[in-house]
Amino acid sequence: VEDLKMQEAHMMSISPRAQLGERVRLGLGVRIYDHVKVGDDCEIGDFVILGHPTQNAKWAGKTLQIPPGSVIRSHTVLYEGSRFTSSLETGHHVVIREGTEAGDNLRIGNYSDIEGDCTIGDYCRFHGYVHVGKGSRVGHFARLYSLVTLTNDPLPPSHVLQGVSVGDGAVLCVGVTVLPGADLGVGAFICSGSQAKGKIAAGSVVLENRPVFGIHRLRSLEHQIVHPWMNHFKDAYPESAWERLDKLKAEILVSAKAFERSSQPFIKRA
Amino acid sequence: VEDLKMQEAHMMSISPRAQLGERVRLGLGVRIYDHVKVGDDCEIGDFVILGHPTQNAKWAGKTLQIPPGSVIRSHTVLYEGSRFTSSLETGHHVVIREGTEAGDNLRIGNYSDIEGDCTIGDYCRFHGYVHVGKGSRVGHFARLYSLVTLTNDPLPPSHVLQGVSVGDGAVLCVGVTVLPGADLGVGAFICSGSQAKGKIAAGSVVLENRPVFGIHRLRSLEHQIVHPWMNHFKDAYPESAWERLDKLKAEILVSAKAFERSSQPFIKRA
Amino acid sequence: VEDLKMQEAHMMSISPRAQLGERVRLGLGVRIYDHVKVGDDCEIGDFVILGHPTQNAKWAGKTLQIPPGSVIRSHTVLYEGSRFTSSLETGHHVVIREGTEAGDNLRIGNYSDIEGDCTIGDYCRFHGYVHVGKGSRVGHFARLYSLVTLTNDPLPPSHVLQGVSVGDGAVLCVGVTVLPGADLGVGAFICSGSQAKGKIAAGSVVLENRPVFGIHRLRSLEHQIVHPWMNHFKDAYPESAWERLDKLKAEILVSAKAFERSSQPFIKRA
Repeated sequence: VEDLKMQEAHMMSISPRAQLGERVRLGLGVRIYDHVKVGDDCEIGDFVILGHPTQNAKWAGKTLQIPPGSVIRSHTVLYEGSRFTSSLETGHHVVIREGTEAGDNLRIGNYSDIEGDCTIGDYCRFHGYVHVGKGSRVGHFARLYSLVTLTNDPLPPSHVLQGVSVGDGAVLCVGVTVLPGADLGVGAFICSGSQAKGKIAAGSVVLENRPVFGIHRLRSLEHQIVHPWMNHFKDAYPESAWERLDKLKAEILVSAKAFERSSQPFIKRA
Repeated sequence: VEDLKMQEAHMMSISPRAQLGERVRLGLGVRIYDHVKVGDDCEIGDFVILGHPTQNAKWAGKTLQIPPGSVIRSHTVLYEGSRFTSSLETGHHVVIREGTEAGDNLRIGNYSDIEGDCTIGDYCRFHGYVHVGKGSRVGHFARLYSLVTLTNDPLPPSHVLQGVSVGDGAVLCVGVTVLPGADLGVGAFICSGSQAKGKIAAGSVVLENRPVFGIHRLRSLEHQIVHPWMNHFKDAYPESAWERLDKLKAEILVSAKAFERSSQPFIKRA
Repeated sequence: VEDLKMQEAHMMSISPRAQLGERVRLGLGVRIYDHVKVGDDCEIGDFVILGHPTQNAKWAGKTLQIPPGSVIRSHTVLYEGSRFTSSLETGHHVVIREGTEAGDNLRIGNYSDIEGDCTIGDYCRFHGYVHVGKGSRVGHFARLYSLVTLTNDPLPPSHVLQGVSVGDGAVLCVGVTVLPGADLGVGAFICSGSQAKGKIAAGSVVLENRPVFGIHRLRSLEHQIVHPWMNHFKDAYPESAWERLDKLKAEILVSAKAFERSSQPFIKRA
């Protein structure tokens, strides 16, 4: 066993300029470049690359900051010049490029790709194969499910960059594409496979590419749950975030009802 | 050359508790954790991780069983607590999590992600970027093409888990999303880009999100082929499976015709 | 620091039969098999596999040719038996299989998968999660955005292989699926989420699965850009390619107008 541990110790390449905290666990074949700061108690999986150099002059040489308690799973590549304010958790095979500025406790699923030059709020949850284009602005507590794509080029290919904006507490279901420049209001809910474009009212549900009703109509009698999702899913977040979630829920509910009053014609669905 | 081989031998981390069969070939940088049993004649590619620990108490410490003759391609991550009854074949960059119980000869394409706590029958074929959510039940001889997603949360986010069920011999074409709790009958055929929800009749074809006709109408005069696919594609499976395929074909054909008799209104298409 | 460099030098497996040019930089854990030729000044990232063996007899033992100045990013797998005429650039976690014959300066994004037995012209740009099925023929200057899938089986599963054809300068937006045997004309533009099938007229725009108008109607007053994209995006290509782009632009413009004259009924949209 000691021999195996020895081997592991030799199978990586850590720059002497990188700053590693206490009790950082490093997997097999880890590569850490110069401009990297890893907080205490982090777990860095096998075949992970931290601080990958960028050719983008704005971010080259800037530090990649991995906060204490982060878990970076295997085969993940994080570029230099990105910051995360508290515990980051990635799945396997994730890529995050330079200039990503994210808040507390971002969690990203397998094969997701954040293209950089973007801001992401606190407690966001991205599932697998999520693609965040450059210039995106994602609020707090947003949830992006598998295969969600945030685009940015309004007339591809062009040199125009119109990043999207995703409001706090928004839910983007499987396979949603957010078109360039779209502005999704707080608590918007985009149904599976829809495209979201233009301004999407806060608290509205987008079905087949257009807002149709307020999110308080999303409910299941069988399971006794009703949106906003903070009603039944608050406990999936740390208790320290609950007060913020309560406020956000109230705000979304007000918006959802305001949306229904204002929208003409309104498509009624049970 | 001998020197190179020496290097390879040193570039991996194999737990002394793992059980490796005869003639197992190990790639560069392979990591094998404690709770792993690898059968004879397996081929484990470069940068593969076997028996990755899980935090799921139900499966932690349970053995990952890789059957004899399996091929695990590079950059793949298999968690502890999963079983495969005979030769497993994965593409590159695959992830399979804890609690996956699969039958004979499962083949999975590049970048596919099986989230665990699911059952998969014999001789299934998954292409690339396939996502199998927790709680899924997939029958025998099912075929899932690229970007197929099996979901499980009926009102995301929630704590409700409604896995989907995919019948024997079903075909899910490119980009299909199966909605939570959907129950796809034996031999159902879901066309490219469709969503499948609710109960889908055995032997029916789902086009633009609804069942439209029996699968015996899927035919090509030019290529002289007609569904059920066992008519013209049985030879892609081992001869030992042919009798089962013949029975399944007969069952699907009966269901397809029954579907057409029972469905009102019936949408006729050439 | 010297020690670290030593370690790196030992953490790879390079076949003595492989041919490496001058100033080739090799990352951590690189594996290079026998039938590989790497040109001068290439950069091979960490955990990359070059010349992965194939079981396809047509290509087994044939050389993988990586041209001078190529950049192969981390965790990428390139099979033996593929050729690229000038500088290839891949993202992270790319897979390219045997029998891919590509022209100058192909660039492929993260997680893209080229299944081999296909031809790709000069200066093509593929973003992330792009899947190129066997038998595809892609022209010069084609642009495939995220999650584009080129399929090939007209009645899955079958033994029929009907690869698609993508014309020079065509643009396939996010999430486009090209159905088996489709023939996309020069400069065709397929909108996000559409399926493209059959023969698509040169210079036409496909919206919601059918061609609707000529690409010269794709314009933005705000940003003062108008398609063909060579009008405003030529500078993203090397100057040596500009003359070809000018000719292609003229050809596309003629086709776009011809499409509008010939198409009946024509759906007018501002």
